[in-house]
Amino acid sequence: MSGSAHLNMADVAREAGVSVATVSRALRGLPGVSEPTRERIQALARSMSYVVSPEASHLSRGSTGRVAIVVPTLDSWFFATMLAGAQAELQEAGADVLVYQVDGAAARDTFFDHLPARRKADAMIAMTLPLTEAQSARLADLGMGVVLTGARIHDYPRVLIDDVEVALQAVRHLVALGHSRIAMVRSTDPATETSFADADRTTGYHRALAEAGLEPRPDYLLTVPHTLAGGVEAAERLLSLHEPPTAVFAYSDELALAIVQTLRRAHLRVPEDVSVVGVDGHPLAELLDMTTVEQPVEQQGRLAGRLALRLLSDGDPPTQELRLPTRLRVRGTTGPPSAPEADPS
Amino acid sequence: MSGSAHLNMADVAREAGVSVATVSRALRGLPGVSEPTRERIQALARSMSYVVSPEASHLSRGSTGRVAIVVPTLDSWFFATMLAGAQAELQEAGADVLVYQVDGAAARDTFFDHLPARRKADAMIAMTLPLTEAQSARLADLGMGVVLTGARIHDYPRVLIDDVEVALQAVRHLVALGHSRIAMVRSTDPATETSFADADRTTGYHRALAEAGLEPRPDYLLTVPHTLAGGVEAAERLLSLHEPPTAVFAYSDELALAIVQTLRRAHLRVPEDVSVVGVDGHPLAELLDMTTVEQPVEQQGRLAGRLALRLLSDGDPPTQELRLPTRLRVRGTTGPPSAPEADPS
Repeated sequence: MSGSAHLNMADVAREAGVSVATVSRALRGLPGVSEPTRERIQALARSMSYVVSPEASHLSRGSTGRVAIVVPTLDSWFFATMLAGAQAELQEAGADVLVYQVDGAAARDTFFDHLPARRKADAMIAMTLPLTEAQSARLADLGMGVVLTGARIHDYPRVLIDDVEVALQAVRHLVALGHSRIAMVRSTDPATETSFADADRTTGYHRALAEAGLEPRPDYLLTVPHTLAGGVEAAERLLSLHEPPTAVFAYSDELALAIVQTLRRAHLRVPEDVSVVGVDGHPLAELLDMTTVEQPVEQQGRLAGRLALRLLSDGDPPTQELRLPTRLRVRGTTGPPSAPEADPS
Repeated sequence: MSGSAHLNMADVAREAGVSVATVSRALRGLPGVSEPTRERIQALARSMSYVVSPEASHLSRGSTGRVAIVVPTLDSWFFATMLAGAQAELQEAGADVLVYQVDGAAARDTFFDHLPARRKADAMIAMTLPLTEAQSARLADLGMGVVLTGARIHDYPRVLIDDVEVALQAVRHLVALGHSRIAMVRSTDPATETSFADADRTTGYHRALAEAGLEPRPDYLLTVPHTLAGGVEAAERLLSLHEPPTAVFAYSDELALAIVQTLRRAHLRVPEDVSVVGVDGHPLAELLDMTTVEQPVEQQGRLAGRLALRLLSDGDPPTQELRLPTRLRVRGTTGPPSAPEADPS
């Protein structure tokens, strides 16, 4: 293979008067291209000495037998659990799993510049990874099969929860308990970074407030790092407000747990003084009696693995979005506010 | 970058006047190439449109550039954190990481029968994976480089902590506080399964008891699954004893956390009624004010990754055992027993 002249698919596309995607599909034998067009493109590619690289041509049969899974970080319960599900699904089917950690915008830029997974795998699962337009276009160019979790990009098959609904479930619960001073603690600022979950949950938070006739307060919307230290910081910032909230909707159970613990260290009672609700269904949420909105994390990984397997075996699964349900679990960290609140209107 | 002509590394080497191995090392960012040379080779490779092809860009000896990491399970803080360290170390050096989950003796048998990692990787890191003689011999036969964490098998290079010392640090602390009814909760029974950590910690537990002139009691040595539910079970079994212990040494912080929570649900005070000490240095241990014996988990992963890189680049690292220190962190879940205990002698 070394030394053979590889022509650009774009060159073939230009010459054939079709899109790069069509060339890619035609050369890989995928459906969606008429037989005459396919033959024309294949002939053209041959005449232009286009050599289908052995590593790039086998998407339909899975030549490497490998799937690359890209996660922001491995040492977080959420990603470890989702990876565990996807890896198990792929391993059971005999596929190998390459793992990459790509944390933060700078690391993502580097990763997609060099794209180490290129040609090393037949498909990539991007787990809750914010991709820029350029980055996702780059993936499409390379003809890699892509599966997403927690994101909607192009027509890539994806596994999602409804993050607007997550926030509605949590915040409506707090409203129903009688709270009107409700804060939200999130982990990325959608204004500066693409996080579908943060953006959608912020939308849901605002929608639930609006339903209840509550005005959103900028000092009640906090963005902190997604770590236990971030949760501690969030609680401290909320406690330092002139009028602290009586309830907190936290982005994750890990953040919620750190918030609860910090409030208790400050001799506040949870839920009597402050209610806290998290998201995830972390095993500790049950043990520590925390109210949370549960999402099926391992199963999202399993389904993403299954979509990747279909990319490997059939070449091209129907574009689809698998949307899994979430569920409020009411436990001991949420309750009515202890004293009647002033009417906020 | 798509469509660029792929040149052979040999072409770059010829042009640069260096060996192919040097080109390979330079492009992969491995040590052993001076910075000026590396820059020259990288510039040359860029100008020659050299695209690092996975199958052609082998580490100097390794043929695949891949390291297989085998863990019992991914969705546990300990393994996710150790994997995060090893994966980061390998990724930074340009090596790819294949991940396998092999949980339980039956799964290990199947895995080593089929050995899916065979020839797919140049080296394997077996993370705290109990291997039988036959299994480790099989690895040796295949000529795969093997790195171990948390285990001593053959002369494989390994990263360890001193698990006897871990138990001594924990149990001597409990003895010094005045406890004589000290239980140990472990996660595997060394009599039926090979776990170096469990076996060594059991040895340390017995040694610390002997130092203090305390008789070991069979009803104070419990084996439970390494899950939060296992911790709950352990606490319930200890509470059901005619003479419950006043202190518990738990195999991990996750078990300790479940034990503390279960004791508190049973309206026992921690540490006044029962002291609990864990192992690991889980981030939650600090947040929840838990006494623990800290071990550097991520760093063990990093060092294992580094040993694997040396297997890849030098072929054969000196046999070595890297032993990392552990440290008792005294926090709020351990204290003196509330009432004077009967003299056990």
